Formats: sequence, structure tokens, C-alpha cells
Amino acid sequence: MYEGAVQDLIDELGRLPGVGPKSAQRIAFHLLAEDPEDVKRLVTAITEVKARVQFCTVCGNVAQQELCQVCRDPRRSPTVICVVEEPKDVVAIERTREFRGKYHVLGGAINPIAGVGPDDLRIAQLLSRLADGQVTEVILATDPNVEGEATSTYLARLLVPMGLTVTRLASGLPVGGDLEYADEVTLGRAFEGRRRISA
Amino acid sequence: MYEGAVQDLIDELGRLPGVGPKSAQRIAFHLLAEDPEDVKRLVTAITEVKARVQFCTVCGNVAQQELCQVCRDPRRSPTVICVVEEPKDVVAIERTREFRGKYHVLGGAINPIAGVGPDDLRIAQLLSRLADGQVTEVILATDPNVEGEATSTYLARLLVPMGLTVTRLASGLPVGGDLEYADEVTLGRAFEGRRRISA
Repeated sequence: MYEGAVQDLIDELGRLPGVGPKSAQRIAFHLLAEDPEDVKRLVTAITEVKARVQFCTVCGNVAQQELCQVCRDPRRSPTVICVVEEPKDVVAIERTREFRGKYHVLGGAINPIAGVGPDDLRIAQLLSRLADGQVTEVILATDPNVEGEATSTYLARLLVPMGLTVTRLASGLPVGGDLEYADEVTLGRAFEGRRRISA
Repeated sequence: MYEGAVQDLIDELGRLPGVGPKSAQRIAFHLLAEDPEDVKRLVTAITEVKARVQFCTVCGNVAQQELCQVCRDPRRSPTVICVVEEPKDVVAIERTREFRGKYHVLGGAINPIAGVGPDDLRIAQLLSRLADGQVTEVILATDPNVEGEATSTYLARLLVPMGLTVTRLASGLPVGGDLEYADEVTLGRAFEGRRRISA
């Protein structure tokens, strides 16, 4: 519909996740009208990420060196590993400031429909990190959905027989939410995981 | 939160229209994991648009030469000009295949709140196109919202005294919609603009 270069850009933008044809068109016209300096900053940012960012050889998190920030940090405890699906989960957990151990990024979750099996995840790398016996606890922090639960169940079956403490993040009512709006599965989990209040 | 290059990319993507922090993060990780060839195509598309696409010196539509596709086309009638807000409106009207005249792109609509007045639009260029008397009809095809209506009213006051036929796109019920779901303004307009059916 548009002349060559504009249509090419709309097509390329439309291939990004969450960007439909209308948004692609809107972003293309925004870039077209924008200051060349600002557009250059975007292009540089994309190019730099591809040139400089890699995945940590130990945990699979994003890194600008061989090891990521967390794996490089000597203050982080090497005895606890928190297993997550994606690098963005690392950022979400770091934001809580609750966890001072190391991470292991699986690179997804078991999902037979999408053709993702255990061999497609960084599970072998996790097992080799556990081989020297330094790690005492593995926290399974996969997403609380079907795929995440399946992945945690799979990992627990592997890790518990190894004599490790294996834990799963608590399910329950989200803080700040309304009890009446909680779905029945969440509310059921909150009952199941109820805690005694000591006086 | 992320290491340098990843955070830079998330920040740059977050400045695009309709891309919030979560989408920016999602797109950044998509680009990070994607094939370098595909990412290069996106970067090239952005760079090409900035290098090659300009605005038609006559009508203000996007163009890869001095004149846009429509202004270059000798089969398009030079006696009718359709006035629109943005280049994407040209594409929307072209898709209908109803219009065979030329366009004039204003580059926006009058919007006092956003500080856009008549002098910020390509109105002077429109008037100079009308100076030679070749144009007999101006179709006002601005958006059917407050800013678009204000712009059309402003233009009509300028153009009608010049002896031109000035028309506005019909307002009414969208085709394929349900009458009961139409808002009262649209339904009111549909009544106002009702047409006699000849046997």
C-alpha cells in the first residue's frame, strides 16, 4: 500500500511480538517524523545489544561479559540457586531484594503443545552446577501456570532424590488484591498454604 | 535494572508510541534472541526510511521522490482535492478505490490543547494549490472527532467564499455494525443524513 521503504519498515515492525499492523504503521510514521538523532539512538541501541549482549555461560542470564552481574558478584551466596524461566524473571526477583543467592535461567518451560521438552531447556547445565555439592537448596520459581508447574514438578522429581532441599515459591492471594476477586484455584492454594499466626 | 545495553534498548523502545515498559522489555528480549540477519533487516528498514522517504512537496504525503505516487499519476483528476490529516488516511481512502482525484495532507488537526493551531498545518500550501482555479471541489476528510470537525469547519469557512464546492465525508452508521450499539451522536447523524430511496 505504501511506497517501498515505508512498507518494508511496517512489515519488519509488524514481526515484533505484540506489534500488530496498526501499531506497526503508527511506529513507522513516528520514526519517519522523528528527529534523525533520536532514530539513530534506537538503531544504535539495537545494534549494540546484538553486538555486546550474550548469555551468561554459568546461569543463562543476559550478560555483557562471560558471566552476568549476579554470577560475578562475590557477595551472592553460592549455596542457593533460584531456577527461573527467563532473564526477565531474574529482574523481577532482584527487584524484591529478598534473594541473595544465584540464579539459573532455563530459557523457557516445558510445553508439549509448542514442542518444548526438557531437553530444550538448560536442565543439563543446572545438574552440572549441582555436581560439586556446594548447593544445598534449589528454589523453583517458574511461572505459576500449567507449563511452569509442569517444569517445576519435572525438576523436583530429578532434584529431591539428590538429597537437595527443593522449594517452590508460595501460591496465594496477591498482596493488595480483593479476596472476592481471586479465582478459585488461587483461593484454594491460599487455604492449602495457610500459616499459623503465633501470638 | 538490566546491564547497560539491554536497558538502553528497553528505554529506546519504550519511547515509541504505544510501546509501554512491558512491551519494550518483551521486544528487547525478542531481538536479543532473534537471528542476527532478521535484526539486521529491521535496522536496515529503519535506516532506509530515514534516508529515502520524504514528504511530497505538493500534497505532503509520504514519497520516495519529490512527488508522491498519487501526484505523479497522470490519470488522477487534478480538479478534486481530498484533504486528510495524515498520510495513513491517504492509504485508508486509496483502499476503498472510490476516489480518483488528488490529496492534500494537513499533517494533523487543529487541537488547542496540544498547541496545534491552523498555522501548524499545511493550510497555506492548500490555498496556493487552489490559486490557479483548476480545482473545483475540495472534499474534507478529516477524522470524525472534535479536532477533525474543528479543522473541517475552519477550512470550510476559508474555502466556501472562494466559490469552491466543499464537501464533508458522510457521518452515519458503520457498515456491518449493529444499530443498537451505535452511540447517540452517530445515530443522530445517521438520521440527519438519511437518504430517500427511489423506487
